[in-house]
Amino acid sequence: MDEQAKKAALLMIPYGLYVLSSKNGDALATGTVNWVTQASFKPPLVAMGVKKDSGLFAALKGSGTFSLNVLGSGQKDMAFSFFRHVEPENGKLGSYAFHAGESGGAILEDAPAWVEGAITDIIERGDHAVVIGEVTNAGVNREAKVLTLEECGVQYGG
Amino acid sequence: MDEQAKKAALLMIPYGLYVLSSKNGDALATGTVNWVTQASFKPPLVAMGVKKDSGLFAALKGSGTFSLNVLGSGQKDMAFSFFRHVEPENGKLGSYAFHAGESGGAILEDAPAWVEGAITDIIERGDHAVVIGEVTNAGVNREAKVLTLEECGVQYGG
Repeated sequence: MDEQAKKAALLMIPYGLYVLSSKNGDALATGTVNWVTQASFKPPLVAMGVKKDSGLFAALKGSGTFSLNVLGSGQKDMAFSFFRHVEPENGKLGSYAFHAGESGGAILEDAPAWVEGAITDIIERGDHAVVIGEVTNAGVNREAKVLTLEECGVQYGG
Repeated sequence: MDEQAKKAALLMIPYGLYVLSSKNGDALATGTVNWVTQASFKPPLVAMGVKKDSGLFAALKGSGTFSLNVLGSGQKDMAFSFFRHVEPENGKLGSYAFHAGESGGAILEDAPAWVEGAITDIIERGDHAVVIGEVTNAGVNREAKVLTLEECGVQYGG
C-alpha cells in the first residue's frame, strides 16, 4: 500500500469536533473526539471512534452510556481544553459549566447541541474502538455552525 | 426525547460525499454514501453507514470487500448519479470511467482519491448497517477539497 496516498485520502474526510462524556460510577470522563458519524435513522445511532487506551473509553465501556456535545464555530478553546482529562469541580469542567444528562455524562452549557443515550455495540479492532450509541435524548441550546477540524487548523486521521 | 432537537443536533455533523462500491461475484454494486468516518490508525479502519435494504449492502456483505471513492468539490453531479444503481457498460458507470481495484470494487477515474480493502465487521442494528473496513490499498489522483453535503445543499441525517 502507498502509505502517503492512504494518509492523503483519509485526511480528505471532513470532521466536526465534539466533547464526548460518560459517567462510570463516581468517575466523570470527558474528552474531545472528531471521528463521529450518524449510523442509522431508526433507531437513531451514532458511531464514534474512541482511543482505546483512554479513561474516556474505559468509562464508556464501564457505564454503557454516553453524552456527545456538538461544538460550535468559535469554540476551538473548548475543544482543545478537553484533549486531556479534566476533573469536575464546583459544577465546572475547567472553565466550562455543565450539568449531568440523563445518562450521567456531562452536558456542557455552552455547547450548541448535544445527544445522549445508551451504547449498543463496541468493536475493539484497532487502536480506536468503534463505539455505537443509540440516541435517546437530545437538546439544542442555540443555532450554530459546527466547529470543524478545518477551522481549528488541525488534522486527526490518515 | 425531543425529536426536533435530536434531528437538529445530528444534522450539525458535517459530511463529505463518497462513492462506495463492491463486487460480489459478477455483480458490481455502487452507491453514494456520506456517513463515513475513520475509526482507527493501526490498522487503518473506516466505518461507513450503509442502507441495509440496498444492493450495495448485499454486495458488501457478500464479497467482504469495498472500495471507497472520495469525491472532490464540484463533483455534485457524480455524487447524485450514484443515488441509484448504475450498471457498468463499456468500462463506464453511466458517464464515468472506472477500473476495478484489487478488491474488485469500482475505482472512479475522476475521483481525486480512493481507498479499498477488506470488511472486518458489520453491525446490523438499525436501518443502516455500520460497515467497518480495513484499508489495504489507496490512491490519490489529484489534490482536491472534498465534496460536502453542505456544498450540494442537501442533508442526510437527523
